[in-house]
Amino acid sequence: MSNDNNEKTAEYFATQQKEISVSQFFEKNKHLLGFDNPTKALLMIVKEAVDNSLDACEEAETVPNIKVVVKNSEGNNFRVSVTDNGPGIVKEQIPKIFGKLLYGSKFHHLKQSRGQQGIGISAAVLFCQLMTGKPAKIWSKTSNKKYTHYCELLIDSNRNEPDVIKEEDIENSVIKEHGTKIEMEIVGRYRRKQGVDDYLKQTSISNPFAKITYHSPDGKKTVFPRSVTKLPKPAKEIKPHPYGVEFGILDRMLKKTNAKTLVSFLTKEFSSVGSKGAREICKLAKLKKSASPSSLKRAEIKKLLLAMQKVKIQRPPLDCISPIGEEEFKKSLKKEYPEAEFVTAITREPAVYRGTPFQIEVGLAYGIDGRDDKSAEILRFANRVPLMYQAGAGAILEAVKKTDWKRYGLQQPAGSIPLGPLIIAIHMASSWVPFISESKEAIAPYPNIVKEIKLAIQDAGRKLSSFLSGKRRLGEQKRRLQAFERYATEVAYALSELTEKNRKEIENKIIELIKERTKLRKDGDGNE
Amino acid sequence: MSNDNNEKTAEYFATQQKEISVSQFFEKNKHLLGFDNPTKALLMIVKEAVDNSLDACEEAETVPNIKVVVKNSEGNNFRVSVTDNGPGIVKEQIPKIFGKLLYGSKFHHLKQSRGQQGIGISAAVLFCQLMTGKPAKIWSKTSNKKYTHYCELLIDSNRNEPDVIKEEDIENSVIKEHGTKIEMEIVGRYRRKQGVDDYLKQTSISNPFAKITYHSPDGKKTVFPRSVTKLPKPAKEIKPHPYGVEFGILDRMLKKTNAKTLVSFLTKEFSSVGSKGAREICKLAKLKKSASPSSLKRAEIKKLLLAMQKVKIQRPPLDCISPIGEEEFKKSLKKEYPEAEFVTAITREPAVYRGTPFQIEVGLAYGIDGRDDKSAEILRFANRVPLMYQAGAGAILEAVKKTDWKRYGLQQPAGSIPLGPLIIAIHMASSWVPFISESKEAIAPYPNIVKEIKLAIQDAGRKLSSFLSGKRRLGEQKRRLQAFERYATEVAYALSELTEKNRKEIENKIIELIKERTKLRKDGDGNE
Repeated sequence: MSNDNNEKTAEYFATQQKEISVSQFFEKNKHLLGFDNPTKALLMIVKEAVDNSLDACEEAETVPNIKVVVKNSEGNNFRVSVTDNGPGIVKEQIPKIFGKLLYGSKFHHLKQSRGQQGIGISAAVLFCQLMTGKPAKIWSKTSNKKYTHYCELLIDSNRNEPDVIKEEDIENSVIKEHGTKIEMEIVGRYRRKQGVDDYLKQTSISNPFAKITYHSPDGKKTVFPRSVTKLPKPAKEIKPHPYGVEFGILDRMLKKTNAKTLVSFLTKEFSSVGSKGAREICKLAKLKKSASPSSLKRAEIKKLLLAMQKVKIQRPPLDCISPIGEEEFKKSLKKEYPEAEFVTAITREPAVYRGTPFQIEVGLAYGIDGRDDKSAEILRFANRVPLMYQAGAGAILEAVKKTDWKRYGLQQPAGSIPLGPLIIAIHMASSWVPFISESKEAIAPYPNIVKEIKLAIQDAGRKLSSFLSGKRRLGEQKRRLQAFERYATEVAYALSELTEKNRKEIENKIIELIKERTKLRKDGDGNE
Repeated sequence: MSNDNNEKTAEYFATQQKEISVSQFFEKNKHLLGFDNPTKALLMIVKEAVDNSLDACEEAETVPNIKVVVKNSEGNNFRVSVTDNGPGIVKEQIPKIFGKLLYGSKFHHLKQSRGQQGIGISAAVLFCQLMTGKPAKIWSKTSNKKYTHYCELLIDSNRNEPDVIKEEDIENSVIKEHGTKIEMEIVGRYRRKQGVDDYLKQTSISNPFAKITYHSPDGKKTVFPRSVTKLPKPAKEIKPHPYGVEFGILDRMLKKTNAKTLVSFLTKEFSSVGSKGAREICKLAKLKKSASPSSLKRAEIKKLLLAMQKVKIQRPPLDCISPIGEEEFKKSLKKEYPEAEFVTAITREPAVYRGTPFQIEVGLAYGIDGRDDKSAEILRFANRVPLMYQAGAGAILEAVKKTDWKRYGLQQPAGSIPLGPLIIAIHMASSWVPFISESKEAIAPYPNIVKEIKLAIQDAGRKLSSFLSGKRRLGEQKRRLQAFERYATEVAYALSELTEKNRKEIENKIIELIKERTKLRKDGDGNE
């Protein structure tokens, strides 16, 4: 236990301590953001850019037109560009938005959006530069400017700051009225399944109002058209709910507020707290209604927090979420799966976890080509973004497996995904989705979330069930009628013997009758 | 697509953009660091403090004495303190080490250590303050100072900077010669299984040189003694290996180096590159050996990178890792599982993934109480730290399941964990462990890592197998001898008739013979 070695002293160790920038952190831990392998990396680059574009358009209440181009440039390098018709970005903000991690507009606001951390697009830029050394290129035009601003940038990862290497205003660009284009280059691998193609198809399902044009590396052009022309009602920002706040946050809010009294603090800074509720909270906490918020001591704050969680308070306002909608969900499933015999969708009433509102939607499409004996295909969405990886770890798969699908007429191996030609599409919309990792690949399986998903599946499952039993009934009837048809000649013969009428005439009438009955049943079938 | 609403313009959106501090990020995403639920949170607090203490002692080459106290203070609040006999921390460094996320000594160095990110202990402080509002208390004494420095701090999460609220030098503290004590308070839940108790027991297995004294919330004191008295050979820092470097990193190294020529750059900045290898790389890349590193253009850097990955280069030096060791591993398993009939351990030769050295160790303990019909218990370790959660997602479980345990005499349901009274302890030591999340709960299942683990399991499995077949043989022999014993009287009678000797005497000799044979077998049994 001697310390005679100079290199082993506290003083020596002190010289080794150093700050780590968040860029350096993610550069070294790139797998945390989903850049594990070349296929996934290529997908992530497209995903971050498209998510950003859709968020920008939706915020500006513009019906999105998105163009995605993925080109194999050299060797394993792929050049990805995404162009949108959003509001554009003012030129002073471009470097930070694309060249600084943990910078953005959504982290501090409580409402549904695709991005929530301010990491996605800048991490994509960081990763591209790490793998290819190439800067990101950005074109952006706002509606009140004549020129498109062009900018090339890298990220100085030691400082987590943008490093602009070229910047100019250009007159004629691809952007006509307003919008943003980003181009990045990455080392990747192109695969159709679980890659960019699947991601864009699913994005089109959860964003029925968006038109996406896609040029794939093999030179193919695919257009995912809109299935509805109207944007959804925009999500509104809300204040935190008393049930979802921790000691440290409450403490900070008390210190920062402009409110002069506790009652006004509670009603002004939180959602769903009226003056009656606020007075009740003060009473239960044994605190003066007129107390100055910033004067509260630790023990008092603790009492206040407990009271806030005990007093019955209305759920938070629900206009901070913007679901896909039952009709819209059905339309987009029909558009992407035209072969489906039956399509249904359910949007549950919003629910709340830890003070945060969320809403579950389930869409089912039955009769999908080539999937008869396989497990159903599960599409997972969070705030309209398709989740492509880590299905095993999340709330959605857990809920699907825990559902008793036999009740709805499907086969299901014990505790597993049901079998059949079925698409199960599940969407969670929330002002804050609890992802299990920064790469946002799966929703944490909190019990109330899993429960709500199960309930939504059950609602949709009942509809599927009545379709399937109708289909079965129809099948039986058809078989019976077919048998009858087969014996029509003989029956006609017997009847003509009995009635002494023309045999051919009787036979024709029987066949007509059969046809009519079959048609009748067919009309009763199909989509609701 | 109109922009007549002022709130929907690019100019308005620009005002909403804001920097997010890494503290704010983790405050909101606390589940990413493992603070999902009260049981886990309590464990994480202890874990971060103990890991830090062990790292500090090991770096200073001090045999660790660690004291852990967990007390239920009020309601669901728990006060956790961890005291070590490490080198202590100079007082200027205390605030940043405990009160700033992404600050530390290990991130920028390539060698095995428990911490690697500079997030653990400060995140623990952040989380405690979030849940209870209480500051962390730190006492630290370095060997050359008379006084212990005492400090109370919070984290200003807006700035990710420490906020020291009290500081003083005190004369008589719990720390005698040198060391550090930290005390934090958290809202938690105490559970024995998969909690602090299990974590400390496992820590004692993977750190046989550490003495840990533990006072649990129920007032019990447990001492985990050392099973070896010597510290392992310390891990040495290494330089990056050419096979594990990306374009962006190489680019940065070229710009930063003091080396004047490409050849000296390659030999000085990388491990395992001699001048012959460096010349070969230059030749393959068609670059001048004397070229100035900082003058290289993008295309040249790319060629250099490709050549670095193609030329045959020795594996990196392996002294950057410090395994538990076969003898040490066996000793600590015997100490913690004294009932085990058989204990073995294997330390594989180091291997390399993506230029990073790693080493796998497997310990098996057979004959564990109360586990006969159950699945074997798997203990997972990374750089001597027990991994307590997310077993399902990692390389270790995958390797265990993929091993054919029937070959080693165990039952195994298809593709699952083997059955039997067995502990399977697996350790990965590396200069950089690829965890699947910041909470460092599971090792990413990279193919070469899984493969190495499987090979190590097979080595250990063969030893288990010969013990088990010995045991089976012994069982049969015992049964045969027992049968013989049962008939000893009659055999003696028959023999006395034949030989006309004293019957009792013959019987005694037979029994003696049986006893001796049984004893003989017993000596041949057991631990190797």
